[in-house]
Formats: sequence, C-alpha cells, structure tokens
Amino acid sequence: MNNTQNYISSHKEQFLNELLDLLRIPSISADPAYAKDVEKTAHLIAEQFTTLGLDKVEVCATKGHPIVYGEKIIDPALPTVLVYGHYDVQPADPIDLWTDPPFEPVIKKTEIHPDGAIFARGACDDKGQMFMHVKAVEAMMRSGELPCNVKFMIEGEEEVGSDNLEEFALNNVERLKADIILVSDTGMLANDVPSVTTGLRGLSYVEVEVTGPNRDLHSGLYGGCVANPINILTKMIASLHDENNRITIPGFYDKVIELSNEERAEMAKAPFSHDAYCKALDIEDTYGEKGYSTMERGSIRPTLDVNGIWGGYIGEGAKTVIASKAYAKISMRLVPDQNPNEITKLFMDHFTSIAPKGTKVKVTPHHGGEAAVTPIDSIAYKAASIAYEETFGVKPIPVRSGGSIPIVAMFEKVLGLKTILMGFGLDSDAIHSPNEHYGLFNFYRGIETIPYFYKHFTELSK
Amino acid sequence: MNNTQNYISSHKEQFLNELLDLLRIPSISADPAYAKDVEKTAHLIAEQFTTLGLDKVEVCATKGHPIVYGEKIIDPALPTVLVYGHYDVQPADPIDLWTDPPFEPVIKKTEIHPDGAIFARGACDDKGQMFMHVKAVEAMMRSGELPCNVKFMIEGEEEVGSDNLEEFALNNVERLKADIILVSDTGMLANDVPSVTTGLRGLSYVEVEVTGPNRDLHSGLYGGCVANPINILTKMIASLHDENNRITIPGFYDKVIELSNEERAEMAKAPFSHDAYCKALDIEDTYGEKGYSTMERGSIRPTLDVNGIWGGYIGEGAKTVIASKAYAKISMRLVPDQNPNEITKLFMDHFTSIAPKGTKVKVTPHHGGEAAVTPIDSIAYKAASIAYEETFGVKPIPVRSGGSIPIVAMFEKVLGLKTILMGFGLDSDAIHSPNEHYGLFNFYRGIETIPYFYKHFTELSK
Repeated sequence: MNNTQNYISSHKEQFLNELLDLLRIPSISADPAYAKDVEKTAHLIAEQFTTLGLDKVEVCATKGHPIVYGEKIIDPALPTVLVYGHYDVQPADPIDLWTDPPFEPVIKKTEIHPDGAIFARGACDDKGQMFMHVKAVEAMMRSGELPCNVKFMIEGEEEVGSDNLEEFALNNVERLKADIILVSDTGMLANDVPSVTTGLRGLSYVEVEVTGPNRDLHSGLYGGCVANPINILTKMIASLHDENNRITIPGFYDKVIELSNEERAEMAKAPFSHDAYCKALDIEDTYGEKGYSTMERGSIRPTLDVNGIWGGYIGEGAKTVIASKAYAKISMRLVPDQNPNEITKLFMDHFTSIAPKGTKVKVTPHHGGEAAVTPIDSIAYKAASIAYEETFGVKPIPVRSGGSIPIVAMFEKVLGLKTILMGFGLDSDAIHSPNEHYGLFNFYRGIETIPYFYKHFTELSK
Repeated sequence: MNNTQNYISSHKEQFLNELLDLLRIPSISADPAYAKDVEKTAHLIAEQFTTLGLDKVEVCATKGHPIVYGEKIIDPALPTVLVYGHYDVQPADPIDLWTDPPFEPVIKKTEIHPDGAIFARGACDDKGQMFMHVKAVEAMMRSGELPCNVKFMIEGEEEVGSDNLEEFALNNVERLKADIILVSDTGMLANDVPSVTTGLRGLSYVEVEVTGPNRDLHSGLYGGCVANPINILTKMIASLHDENNRITIPGFYDKVIELSNEERAEMAKAPFSHDAYCKALDIEDTYGEKGYSTMERGSIRPTLDVNGIWGGYIGEGAKTVIASKAYAKISMRLVPDQNPNEITKLFMDHFTSIAPKGTKVKVTPHHGGEAAVTPIDSIAYKAASIAYEETFGVKPIPVRSGGSIPIVAMFEKVLGLKTILMGFGLDSDAIHSPNEHYGLFNFYRGIETIPYFYKHFTELSK
C-alpha cells in the first residue's frame, strides 16, 4: 500500500478542503426546515462518488431522506467491503454555546489535538469519519492498489433512527451483497490507545405528554386544587429509578444478559481514571446503577435518560401559571438481549399506568434499535486489528461501547452481514454537543488505516 | 348617586373604547422587550387622570416601571380612598393557544357572558378592573357626586412582584395618607353570586438550576455514568411532596395557622360543585393535600407548584443528549403566618441539600409576598357589602382566595392601611392563560358598584 500512502500524504489539503465543504451544509435530519440541505449533501456525496470513478452511483429516494449508493467491482471473485456511513447530523442546539458557528468549520488547536481539530457539527459524527472511507478508496483506486470490491451505502437519517434503511436493505439484498460491513461511527480510547468497538447498546426512544387541566391556570387560584402536569411529570419520571438507580419498569431487566465475572474482570483492564473522567466533565463524582463500575454502567448495563423536558413558562421573569401540559423526551439504552419494541411497550404500559387521576398521558415512540456484539475471533476483527497496528504501532483494544448503532443488528438480520466498527473519534470530540470537533490527526490516520483493512481482509479471506 | 348612575349609563360606549385602547398596548412587565409599551401605558393612564381633572398627576419613576399617581382632595376633613391597581400584564405565552391575538381585543359572547366579553391579555387582570375605578370616579366627578377624597396609585410591576412599590410607599407615606385602600384585582363566585375576598395567600417564587457535566453529552456514551441534570431535577422536585401531597421542606408548615373546625364549616357553606369544577377543567378528579377539601387546598393551605421547567433537546424529533443543565420555576403559595423570606430560605437550604454528588444547584429567588386576611367587621367591608347589595340585589359572600396580592400585607406594614378587595372578575376569565377575557356585564357592574362604596364608606366613617 505504499503508493496509496504516498497519494494520501500528497493530497491532505485537498481531502481537508473537501470535508470542510461537506461540513458547511447544515444537513440536520431531525428538523424539516433543513430538508433541502440534507438533499444537497446527498448530491454532493454522489458527485464525489462519480468523480472517484465508482459505478452505479445513485441518490436513492426513500420515504425520508435519500441513501447514496456507489460501487466498484474489480473482480466478482474477490471479497466485497460494504461501507456504511451517514451524512446527516444532529441539531446544533443549544446554539449559543458554540464558540464558532456550527456550520462554518474552523481549525483550532486543543490540548488533546495539538495538530489542530476541525470544529463543526458533524466534524466527527459522521461526516468526518464517513468521508475518510471515500478518500481511502480514492487513494487506493488512484494508486491502482484497491485489493477487493467496494460498495458504499451512505444514509441521511441515522440521527433520527434510520427509519427507511431497513426497507432499502430489504429491497436491495442482491445489490448490497458483500462479505463485511465497514463503519466508522464510533470512537477509540485515545490517540495513542487505539481500540475497536465490539459491542453496542440498543435504543428505545419515546416522547411523553402529560395533560392536566384543559387550559393554563392561575397558580394562586388553582394551586393545591388540581394535578399540576409538570409536578406530576417530575414525579412519574423520578419514579422510573429506585434508590439504587435501577430502572423500575416491570420486566425491564428480564432479558438482560449478565456478564460473567471473568468477562467483567477482562473489561476492567481497559484504562480508566475516575479522577480524570470527573475532572474532564467538572463533576464531583459519577452517578448510576449500584453494583457496577462507571465503565460497566456506560456499556454493558441498560439505562434511562431524559433527553429533554419542557412545560409552562420558560421565559424571563416569573409567571404564576399551572400549565395544561408538560412534555419529556426519554431514551433507554439497551443491552443484549433486550428487544427495543418490547422495551418501548413495557415503558408505555408502565408510564401510562402510573399517571394519577386528573391527568392524561400520551406516549409516542420515536425510534429504536437492537444492541449488538461483534466477535473478536472473526477475519474482519483480525484485519482491523492488524490495520491499526500498522499505522498506530500498537494493537487496538476491543471495547464494548454505550452508544447505539441500531443498524448493526438490522444489517445482520436483513443482509446476513456482520459489521466491523473502525472508529477514529475520541470521547472528548463533543459529538451531539456544542463545539463538536474532530482531530486532523484522527481524520488523516483514519484515511491511512482503512486501506490496510482492505488489504488484510482480502488476504485473510483467501 | 342617581346622576352618577345616569352618567355611567350614557357613557358606556366611551368607557369601553377607552379600555380597548388600553388593552392594545402589550404592557408585559416580565419581558424587557416590552419596556417601551409598559412606559406608554403609564402615560396613557396619566393622560386619563389629567383629562378627568385629578390633581398632582405624575408618572413616578422607579428603578423599574413607573407608578402613576393622581388625586382629588375635595375636603381634607372627609375620608380618603386610595385606589391601587396595576397596568402591567402577564406574558401572553403560549401565544398559539389564543383564538384572537392577545393585544387586539375583540368582543365575543360566551355561555357565561351572554352580553359579551372582552378578549385580550389584561382584560380582567388588571387593566379592565383597574379602569373601572377611573371611570367610576369620572362619573362621580362629572355628576358632582364625589362624596370624599380619592387618590390613585397604579403600578406597572404587579406581575413581576411589585419590586419597587414598597420603596415608593416608604418615600411617599404623607402623599399616600388615606383611610382605606380600594383594589379590584380579585374575582367573585359568579355573576349572580357576588363575593368579597377577605383572605389572600402569600407567595414565594424561586428559579432553580441544576448543573451536571460541564457540557452536553452523548447519552449513549455517557448514559448510566453521570448524573443527568434533568433526571436529577425531576427527582428533587418530586421529593418536595410526600405521599399525602404534603410539602416535605423541613419547617415549611411550622407557622401555618390552622383554621378551627367552626371556621372550616363556615367555609364549606360556599357553593361548590365538584362535578362542575372537574368538567370545566376536563379533569377526572381534583388533586392535592390529603385531609382538606378542594376549596380549602386552594385557599387556606400552602402549596408548591412548578410553573415552568426546561432542559435538553425540546425541538422536533429525537436527540440523544444528556444536557449539562436543567431549570425550573417554582412558586409556593403561603398562608398566614408564613413569612415569604423565611420560606424562600427554607426552600433554598433544603433544595441545595438534596442535590446528589455530581450535580451543582443554584436557587434564585424571584419575589415574594405575605398572606393577608381582611376583617369582615370593618367599616370598609360593610360599605363594600352594601354597595354590592345595591347593584346585585344580594349581599356578597366573604371568601378566602388562593391568589396572592403581596402588596396588601406590605401596605398595612408601611402605610398602616387596610385594603378592601372589591373584585368583579370570574374564575373562568382565564387570567394568566390564553384567551383571557372580562365580561361586559362585570366591567359595567363594577363601575356602577364602586360609587356606592364611596358613598357608604363616607357615611359609615362619620
């Protein structure tokens, strides 16, 4: 892969400028106001594919945002890598906490990124990481070193639950035929401690609405007389955890696979500094389910978090009102073998049952996804491990992550394909937060590492 | 008062049009964006005073919004009525629930107001009710029937806690010398069941902020690891009530004056239909402190209500974020002899003490006010009672109200004056809510009733 590496090394500025162009389009999939930008981004990627020389390039319409497809089949007898990524991004709120505008990328040095990092929404999640694959394939193709076939499937609805991806996969089983799915949408432990994510949590996401009286009321005249929907909502949410921070929804833990003591001991070997962790977040202590370590609570244990809450008067000053309605968005992270649909149903039944008289409750499911675990004795894992070792000089550590990429379980079910998660982001990249960024080191190192995966995956597949 | 009543009867259209002009100015005191409108409203009232022939008319500057003063001393030997009211209004949120724009008043008939009601923010609270006094005095003056001296003190900060009124009163003790303070900023039981408010609850209002991690986090990577400020806030708020819906803040009930069984039996005589109450609000049942009736819970018992809550992602769709901060606005309605400053302090100490490790809590007091009770054996109460009887044909019922007019206790302390609360609004007027309105019947009947108060108060004072 020498020619490939030389190509990468001499095209860094071009790669970066192209990524910055991609980051300038606010492809926020959750907000209908940005639908045109999402569309525009899809076409920009298709243009990249065409320029690169991929075949059958298509912006595939779905009921939602389009999926961009492209492929290069050099020999049907050779293995095929199917690259998945997403070009949509999270909303940028709270926008006032961004130091620079979220869609006007800037390069700035940080303590962790002395060579500079790209600050923009989507810099890491997932435009930056997805784009590494496009550029890695470009480098291999231009250098005549592409060792196997490659297909790209880049979607625009990952941040809103990939609602139309399963149908697309079902309708394109033949077109998507491959030997492995390759994804960069996760992180690694540190720039000198590479790692490969071998487990992901599932997700159940619901929106709840509590209605009390049919109109906003004066809290002086009605306070004490009627159920205040905000007070009731806080009480209902609070009751979802017990004093040990275990989730109280009946049946919630029934299918949770408990790890053996050996597995937990193995996990505990990953480097983790409680003090550094707390210091980085400016908190006195971590918090969560009794009986598990912080790392365990964030990966092998299911959780329930309120992601948003609102109701009543939230402007400046004081207003003495009892609101008619209160709302919350609640997500549950799931572990094998919790089924997201089952969990959503358990939540809905329980949450509705605990509403006191004088209130009405509505629960709307948003989207979900199953947890997934990747075996470390597979060819794909081994190829990834060698690839990281070639560029980082050390073997990557296999880690279970707390995040969810629900499509991993879906791909296995629909396409019969395993996924390998070669993430190059860092926890500190602030994905889903203001000031999201992605290290230039990580961006370039990713582009350099990916070709080695192709090489070793092809060789190990023989 | 025949000439006065004739004058009223022949100037109804003018009175109404003048009120509508007043309602068109969005004098929202809570929102700095409306500061100019608040100012403009003050000057419009001063103009009314001047036209009316009041002396010493002045828009008195304060550190906040101005207080409008005017007086007519016809004979220093006669009694003096000091009219208090406010020209500021509540914010209009949620604005999308208004059928007509809140500051473009319209007259519409309703089931309760077959003669029509004025729909606008401030129609009842308190522009409509305050303006009745201006017009009642106009009618008496133009008819040569003003029987005593009158002073007006109309403020612009009632909806935000009357922060500068006490200082104004302290600096104007001589100017504000009077025999009684007359206020219309309360309601009556029904258009055929007049009532006079003889008790008011006090108020303590705080804003709380819970901070967890120093930035928004991805709920997949951090869920289960750190205290989520929204979950913690819901837990802290929920814990403020016990299973009997009693408030758990240590010391909260220490100074509450419990009513005797006789007093409670007397209260229970006021007409109250549980079914009609629930039906009007579209709720299955009322809700509140165990051991007390709905009417008691809304008047003689202290309460704690969340008036607003917010945090995290509240836009469309789903965002898997753990917010760095969560907020709530919380008000407590107080009864004699709870001191608002003491209660605020108790709240702050308690709320701060229950914050778990990994979170920081900030409590900001907004404003407060003491509860007040008006004796029904006073000259003022008797004069009011006869006045209502003259125009309604029935004696008004004395009632304890759940609302707060903190300035009543303040006036007693600073000016040594009792207040009589001649309210003409109805519970259904939706004050502080979308579609606030005020019956034309109530507006005109108020203007007709007020001169009789002047007459009988003057006569009984002899």
